[in-house]
Amino acid sequence: MNISHLRKNLNLEEVGQGMYQLIQRLYPICRSITGNGVRETLDIIKEYIPLEVHEVPTGTKVFDWSVPKEWNIRDAYVKDSNGARIIDFKKSNLHVVNYSTPVKKTMSIEDLKAHIHTLPEYPDWIPYRTTYYKEDWGFCLSYNQFLALKDKEYEVCIDSTLEDGHLTYGECFLHGEKEDEFLISCHICHPSLCNDNLSGIALATYLGKYLHKLSLGYSYRFLFIPGTIGSITWLALNEKRALRIKHGLVVACVGDSGKTTYKKCRQGNAEIDDAVIRVLKESGVDHEIIDFFPYGYDERQYCSPGFNLPVGSLMRTPNGRYSEYHTSADNLDFVRPEFITDSFSKYLAVLDIIENNKKYINQNPKCEPQLGKRGLYEQSGGQSGNVVSQLALLWVLNLSDGEYSLLDVSNRSGEKFDSIKLAADRLLECGLLKEAEKEFPA
Amino acid sequence: MNISHLRKNLNLEEVGQGMYQLIQRLYPICRSITGNGVRETLDIIKEYIPLEVHEVPTGTKVFDWSVPKEWNIRDAYVKDSNGARIIDFKKSNLHVVNYSTPVKKTMSIEDLKAHIHTLPEYPDWIPYRTTYYKEDWGFCLSYNQFLALKDKEYEVCIDSTLEDGHLTYGECFLHGEKEDEFLISCHICHPSLCNDNLSGIALATYLGKYLHKLSLGYSYRFLFIPGTIGSITWLALNEKRALRIKHGLVVACVGDSGKTTYKKCRQGNAEIDDAVIRVLKESGVDHEIIDFFPYGYDERQYCSPGFNLPVGSLMRTPNGRYSEYHTSADNLDFVRPEFITDSFSKYLAVLDIIENNKKYINQNPKCEPQLGKRGLYEQSGGQSGNVVSQLALLWVLNLSDGEYSLLDVSNRSGEKFDSIKLAADRLLECGLLKEAEKEFPA
Amino acid sequence: MNISHLRKNLNLEEVGQGMYQLIQRLYPICRSITGNGVRETLDIIKEYIPLEVHEVPTGTKVFDWSVPKEWNIRDAYVKDSNGARIIDFKKSNLHVVNYSTPVKKTMSIEDLKAHIHTLPEYPDWIPYRTTYYKEDWGFCLSYNQFLALKDKEYEVCIDSTLEDGHLTYGECFLHGEKEDEFLISCHICHPSLCNDNLSGIALATYLGKYLHKLSLGYSYRFLFIPGTIGSITWLALNEKRALRIKHGLVVACVGDSGKTTYKKCRQGNAEIDDAVIRVLKESGVDHEIIDFFPYGYDERQYCSPGFNLPVGSLMRTPNGRYSEYHTSADNLDFVRPEFITDSFSKYLAVLDIIENNKKYINQNPKCEPQLGKRGLYEQSGGQSGNVVSQLALLWVLNLSDGEYSLLDVSNRSGEKFDSIKLAADRLLECGLLKEAEKEFPA
Repeated sequence: MNISHLRKNLNLEEVGQGMYQLIQRLYPICRSITGNGVRETLDIIKEYIPLEVHEVPTGTKVFDWSVPKEWNIRDAYVKDSNGARIIDFKKSNLHVVNYSTPVKKTMSIEDLKAHIHTLPEYPDWIPYRTTYYKEDWGFCLSYNQFLALKDKEYEVCIDSTLEDGHLTYGECFLHGEKEDEFLISCHICHPSLCNDNLSGIALATYLGKYLHKLSLGYSYRFLFIPGTIGSITWLALNEKRALRIKHGLVVACVGDSGKTTYKKCRQGNAEIDDAVIRVLKESGVDHEIIDFFPYGYDERQYCSPGFNLPVGSLMRTPNGRYSEYHTSADNLDFVRPEFITDSFSKYLAVLDIIENNKKYINQNPKCEPQLGKRGLYEQSGGQSGNVVSQLALLWVLNLSDGEYSLLDVSNRSGEKFDSIKLAADRLLECGLLKEAEKEFPA
Repeated sequence: MNISHLRKNLNLEEVGQGMYQLIQRLYPICRSITGNGVRETLDIIKEYIPLEVHEVPTGTKVFDWSVPKEWNIRDAYVKDSNGARIIDFKKSNLHVVNYSTPVKKTMSIEDLKAHIHTLPEYPDWIPYRTTYYKEDWGFCLSYNQFLALKDKEYEVCIDSTLEDGHLTYGECFLHGEKEDEFLISCHICHPSLCNDNLSGIALATYLGKYLHKLSLGYSYRFLFIPGTIGSITWLALNEKRALRIKHGLVVACVGDSGKTTYKKCRQGNAEIDDAVIRVLKESGVDHEIIDFFPYGYDERQYCSPGFNLPVGSLMRTPNGRYSEYHTSADNLDFVRPEFITDSFSKYLAVLDIIENNKKYINQNPKCEPQLGKRGLYEQSGGQSGNVVSQLALLWVLNLSDGEYSLLDVSNRSGEKFDSIKLAADRLLECGLLKEAEKEFPA
Repeated sequence: MNISHLRKNLNLEEVGQGMYQLIQRLYPICRSITGNGVRETLDIIKEYIPLEVHEVPTGTKVFDWSVPKEWNIRDAYVKDSNGARIIDFKKSNLHVVNYSTPVKKTMSIEDLKAHIHTLPEYPDWIPYRTTYYKEDWGFCLSYNQFLALKDKEYEVCIDSTLEDGHLTYGECFLHGEKEDEFLISCHICHPSLCNDNLSGIALATYLGKYLHKLSLGYSYRFLFIPGTIGSITWLALNEKRALRIKHGLVVACVGDSGKTTYKKCRQGNAEIDDAVIRVLKESGVDHEIIDFFPYGYDERQYCSPGFNLPVGSLMRTPNGRYSEYHTSADNLDFVRPEFITDSFSKYLAVLDIIENNKKYINQNPKCEPQLGKRGLYEQSGGQSGNVVSQLALLWVLNLSDGEYSLLDVSNRSGEKFDSIKLAADRLLECGLLKEAEKEFPA
């Protein structure tokens, strides 16, 4: 079975339920760019797909960076004068600034306030903050919680450790017919935030789960990595292998109700760009194509000038464009099964194009071949379905000169990719097409 | 005399009357892709232009195809129980499905109906149907005729023959200064249908009639061929010669009242494309430019990937886009002299551009030459006519660096081609321009 | 001090007053394409900038042209029967057709009228007319003056000379680090007309005055020349040197209230085009970009095909597009200090871009460098100023692959050039960028 067959036979509702349940399981875990939350997350993903877990020691040089100390946290709270936990890590792991150094002391309200982050414009939401590269600590509160702080002194505790250890990431490699790779990359460093990026983790996991059983043209590499430092680490440790990546997508923010957004790779006209744009166009639904910019997620690293890989990002609402972004409101209600399912099926459609996007040579290039004697001619026309297929046949024949891939034929003709693919299959069967000689990288 | 002179001196109304009378003469003949109707048609065209008539035997291999059996028909009818010819080939040759095999028997209304084609949405019109590559027979009726069939049995007769013979086509070649050719191709296989394509036949014939007397830069080849199998046959028998075709137009549907439409060749940016687009732009009248697609008329064959010739199609309303298409309503009323005349003059304008579209080298390329001392400077400006011509002179001088043809100068400047041509002529006269060295094909 | 520093420290109001005062001084002088008016004008400019004055003898061959005879005029008038000067050169030098041959006689009103030019549609304005290349004479009057001519005879006097002499032009050359040149060219041949082109003369003079004191990357050449014949003369005498011109602007009509207009050079995509377009875009104010056409001012000569220099023209309202053009209404009221100041600052902004538009190589091209450890990372974001600068840093790093100049980075990113420049400077300081090897002309 290949991806085309899978797409026809898949029960998408089931897939959606599965992804949503995975999000529900992962939601409570306190993840960061290192630490046990990441390990716990990868252990769960391992139940779905074959996953190799890598541990890279603190201090390892990765290009311009070093792998940081490992951060772990057990508990954290602020107690009022009655000893009540008025801020409690156990209620939401967003309450603690991620990567906070340990604290344990009683302090004045003034001293405490210097370490508190709130969102006055959304008084019920807790913001999400990090301090990876500057040793510091802090608490994040809803603005209403903040207004309720009336005591003069508070007992403050962050029971964390920041010590030499490891950076942990997961990798799932699926062998295809070719050594050329398709990269699926998602960041796994955010704690209880659903769209950013449990949605991406769930989608990537389920892609892996289904592709695992298929016969594949490309090899597929799935990376479950902490943002920025994770992709830098992987690229540093796999510099040569990275050159095999012929297409790639960074999966993030794929579960909200917003329209689908594609951010092109730095090259801007790569095959992955064409493939995604075609899928979005054929969806018939409002969507947005944006040019590459060196901000966002790990496409920043894959598209740095020394790699310049054809890796785009297929999202729904991009980071920073929704109010719930990086707040406690990015929760299990913000992400819905139907939206992540829609994203999943778009990913599959893209992969289906990439897998099938070959170039062919018309074996009868001088004038049209006689379709009738091969049973490919609808004698008396009629239903529009037939006419379309007739046109698709003629387009494939006309443009199969070794220059046009099927995706190019689809783009020039305006015919759907599946229709062009079907036409090519029928022409192959009767010997009117032959695959163009593949180019091998030098 | 050259084309430019012809355009100035031609009595277009006379030309229009002549073309329309030719359509009237050819209208009654029952043509098909082979047979005596084609021969009769070519005999009439021969009265206007020097025409070589070719006969290609049935069974001749032409690329993926074989020349089919020759079809001829003398009579056909359906008689009711009173012996009255209620369907009569003599009233309209559209009544018989083109290429019908012979029939002579009495049959039930049910059996007959299985062979009848109608157009319920246009109850007075007879459809046009063919069965070239599947041996079959049938009748085409207006829907009202069909409703009137009340008898139980009918006498059915098609007095046709389908036997080894020839495919017949006509060719008119006019020698020009160069071996490079301009192809004018029209299909001659349709019976009593006026716009499609007696209009094309008449326009091509009259182009030939007038060009015949001119001194020509390019050589011109006119093909009067059955659609599809005719162009395939010509290309198969003239594979090498086809490479001399530097520009070409397929003439079809040029007599209706619709706006002019140009379908680009497969290359999409050939000189013929630029020339036609400029003529349509300068016409100041609504028109449409459409991209190539591998459907329509014989441009499908000329633009197949193994030839990829620069052959577009200059029409009015394209095939399939008007209700009268392939029905008895495509008659002598549907085509009007003023419309075919307008098409004719656009063809001439295109040819005029192509004939004159040379590249020149400014002989005084450093700074502007002094136009005044050559009588080319309108000292005190004034009438807008002069100012335009002044600008045209300056544009031709500025862009005549061997890269820009006059058509390119016209396109970049926005000045009309004739104005640019006039400027170039005046600059040539006074030695400020020289023709760029011609490139010869290897 | 370089141009960037100058732009920050300049008192633009002072500059504007200075330019306007220069215009006021030059306004009364009767200039032409040759003669003492030009010399007097250059003498005044010499007070501001180092200027070499060239005298080219009448009859010198310059490409297709010859330097014309020198024209000078002392007085001119028309006296009525009472001996009153009803037309008086001393009141406006526009009253005499520029380059008029001497006249001294009494003539009938009819004979006089054959030599009179008026503007009936603007009855109070005097038109400006010339007769450089046809020996003739004439007077220009307001239409109201013309209507008041009631006498039968008039005494007509033009006390001019047209004799062998010289063509005079001024040249100011400022040495920069490179031999490559930036050309600033303005025409100095118009008499009492302010926008066309005392505004250009004043702007060019003040540019020279300020650049003179700066350390410059490019060498700057300022030409103060009579229109057409002046640029042709300079190009003919400096054919080889002209090849060093890498960017250039023709300065004309820069003092009126109209929107800024940029006319691209013939190449159409030169660096000067990109730079000006960016400045206009960043101005946030309505402006117009027009394609090159071979008419206008001396860009016609610089952009002739034998030179094809990257010389555009940055104006406000172009010649011929305002009613006051070439009339006495193009006076000291039509030009205002604030508009010429605005033009001046746009010229400076363009020069600033061109001076700084280098290509760099990211020294850490694989993944992003860690900005934090270099103090370039705004840990907690915040003010939009910082965020922009962060993005500018990332864009410069991402695109500094030797292909993109800073202007290209600005164009692709949409970030302002100054922001990109600042980012590049900071990255250079910390060693993350290195200038790409400069290409030397062969």
